[in-house]
Amino acid sequence: MTVYFDNAATTPLDPEVLEAMLPFMRDHFGNPSSIHGHGRQVRAAIENARKSIAHLINAAPAEIVFTSCGTEADNYAAFGSIRTLGLRHAITSKLEHHAVLHTLQALEKAGDIQLSYLRHDARGQLDLGHLDELLATHPGRTFVSLMHANNEIGNLNDIEAIGEICQRHEAVFHTDTVQTMGHYKHDVQKLKVDFLVGSAHKFHGPKGIGFLYRRSGVLVDSLIHGGSQERNQRAGTENVYGIVGLSKALEIACRDMAEHQQHIQGLKDRFIHKLRAEIEGVEFNGLSAEAEHSLYTVLNVSLPPSEMNEMLLFNLDINRVSVSGGSACTSGANAGSHVLSALNCDPNRGAIRFSMSKYNTAEEVDYAVEQLAKMYRKEPLKI
Amino acid sequence: MTVYFDNAATTPLDPEVLEAMLPFMRDHFGNPSSIHGHGRQVRAAIENARKSIAHLINAAPAEIVFTSCGTEADNYAAFGSIRTLGLRHAITSKLEHHAVLHTLQALEKAGDIQLSYLRHDARGQLDLGHLDELLATHPGRTFVSLMHANNEIGNLNDIEAIGEICQRHEAVFHTDTVQTMGHYKHDVQKLKVDFLVGSAHKFHGPKGIGFLYRRSGVLVDSLIHGGSQERNQRAGTENVYGIVGLSKALEIACRDMAEHQQHIQGLKDRFIHKLRAEIEGVEFNGLSAEAEHSLYTVLNVSLPPSEMNEMLLFNLDINRVSVSGGSACTSGANAGSHVLSALNCDPNRGAIRFSMSKYNTAEEVDYAVEQLAKMYRKEPLKI
Repeated sequence: MTVYFDNAATTPLDPEVLEAMLPFMRDHFGNPSSIHGHGRQVRAAIENARKSIAHLINAAPAEIVFTSCGTEADNYAAFGSIRTLGLRHAITSKLEHHAVLHTLQALEKAGDIQLSYLRHDARGQLDLGHLDELLATHPGRTFVSLMHANNEIGNLNDIEAIGEICQRHEAVFHTDTVQTMGHYKHDVQKLKVDFLVGSAHKFHGPKGIGFLYRRSGVLVDSLIHGGSQERNQRAGTENVYGIVGLSKALEIACRDMAEHQQHIQGLKDRFIHKLRAEIEGVEFNGLSAEAEHSLYTVLNVSLPPSEMNEMLLFNLDINRVSVSGGSACTSGANAGSHVLSALNCDPNRGAIRFSMSKYNTAEEVDYAVEQLAKMYRKEPLKI
Repeated sequence: MTVYFDNAATTPLDPEVLEAMLPFMRDHFGNPSSIHGHGRQVRAAIENARKSIAHLINAAPAEIVFTSCGTEADNYAAFGSIRTLGLRHAITSKLEHHAVLHTLQALEKAGDIQLSYLRHDARGQLDLGHLDELLATHPGRTFVSLMHANNEIGNLNDIEAIGEICQRHEAVFHTDTVQTMGHYKHDVQKLKVDFLVGSAHKFHGPKGIGFLYRRSGVLVDSLIHGGSQERNQRAGTENVYGIVGLSKALEIACRDMAEHQQHIQGLKDRFIHKLRAEIEGVEFNGLSAEAEHSLYTVLNVSLPPSEMNEMLLFNLDINRVSVSGGSACTSGANAGSHVLSALNCDPNRGAIRFSMSKYNTAEEVDYAVEQLAKMYRKEPLKI
């Protein structure tokens, strides 16, 4: 059995999404900026995709800008807001994805902003009183970037409450919704956000395409200059099949959301139950084991100190279980998790992130738990 | 008959390229940054693609950075060089693509650089003596960006000579090779370039993927910050199928280059010959009709003053001939061609760019000329 539990890193492309993309790879190949027939038919597909995505998050089509990935969208929001609006202060937290953290740190290093980090507790819960305080004590407008859900530990942040605080202080609010787009309902008419972000490959869409929701009226300069694509907001010939696939994937994700959520939450509950039964001293990082406050797709397991911990991912991989030891997005760098470090997690404990999708099954959960338990059972199985 | 002569805007995806991409859309879906089996197999494909592309332009694999398009690569080279190396002066020409022109103008507007424009004659030939002079009279290091071939009029610039001049003055030399990559041989060991650029969809590869060649030792900051992908040079999960498709497309283009060049040059010669025979007063913009100094893929036709000119593209489109009236990349903006304006072309003359690919035929050339000639013949055909 080969088991894939790294869906927070990337998800398999839905065959229905591929089917929607193929006509644009085979037949409708025109450049959407061309005004002739070959171009117009492709332009129409892009604008339909934009309308569909806008509708699903209750935005206007003109508020959707296609980008090459979630990271580009995060960069665009941060660089665009801070440089165009001349913001001199930003607030984020040390638990953010590198797409936000490294971007704001680059702006700090360049002398554009002073960067404040929001306090959080050992389970990753943000101190919103501190946010209010930071905003109250800093003169001028602030850029706030706080994610909807943490990609490593799964904590869901209350972006509705954060948006209210930001609005009260007239701060620009960007939230990295890469882990929740397609998994939770977003309504930009209710949320007080200026920017949110989607990345297709996190919800069974293609890699190489994402989008930025930019609230109408928040006008910021482009990150990538050149042609007049995306209403002068993002130059470069559009990734047509990517855009079509993104739109189809979000449509499917929203259509089947309740059903998938129930299925995946069931798998997560099974994981928690089985791990507690099989491995003495197992714990869960962040709010990972609390259904209401955690992504249903992510479970971050904390394993008791053991000589096995160093070889944890390696051993699971040998047994054909693909998981991540933190954020897979940069695990190639072989550095530890900056999130678990920020939570002061015991470095002697092992950490594994299981992240699930609609394609996973109860049998796969049982198999993965069995492989993990083998390493931690006091009496190793006889082979 | 439906005829596509807008291949400088974009080309149809080669079915052989699509075949190479599909396994990564169907089966090998892992995140290349993941260290488990699902990730490693995809990582290997990306590194093989990088090696193959590097080999084809005689570069080292570490000198290739994948980007989401040619425009991003141009932006990355310009912003990266100017800001990281603290360059205060840049030279370009008014005939460049907007990906270069608007990017350098944004840097000028932000106060980073003083921007000089190279002189050229009415046929778009660059004054290299002026380049030498500009470099000699400006203190400090300069960023030079001059394209290999013009996307509208097809003029080929002598980037070997430009590189020599740049090297003599220690300037950083970036050349936009988007129109020549896959159509001409590039050897970065011979060229004195620091950056060159490729965009897959210009040579029958997929949209949404390009690359920057960055000469080893020219270290510049990222344009897009976040994860450690592309050796910390370009954050964001890689467009895996795009990269695989780019590599395959460049491999095919280089393999069949001589054969395609002969075929397409033949079509271009036929176009020129037939247009001269059919339309009195027809001319060709730039060096478009001079084989040695012009892209074999592009023919920019100048049509005599006529009341037909305003409806030129519209009438061809009705007859199912897709062409561009300038650079198709931004023709959606409905603005005139900045290149033809810079050449002081007579605004009363019509202009059409025919751009050809390996898939075009002599019959298509005859059909397109016939449709065009109908509008300009002194005695209109009876219908």
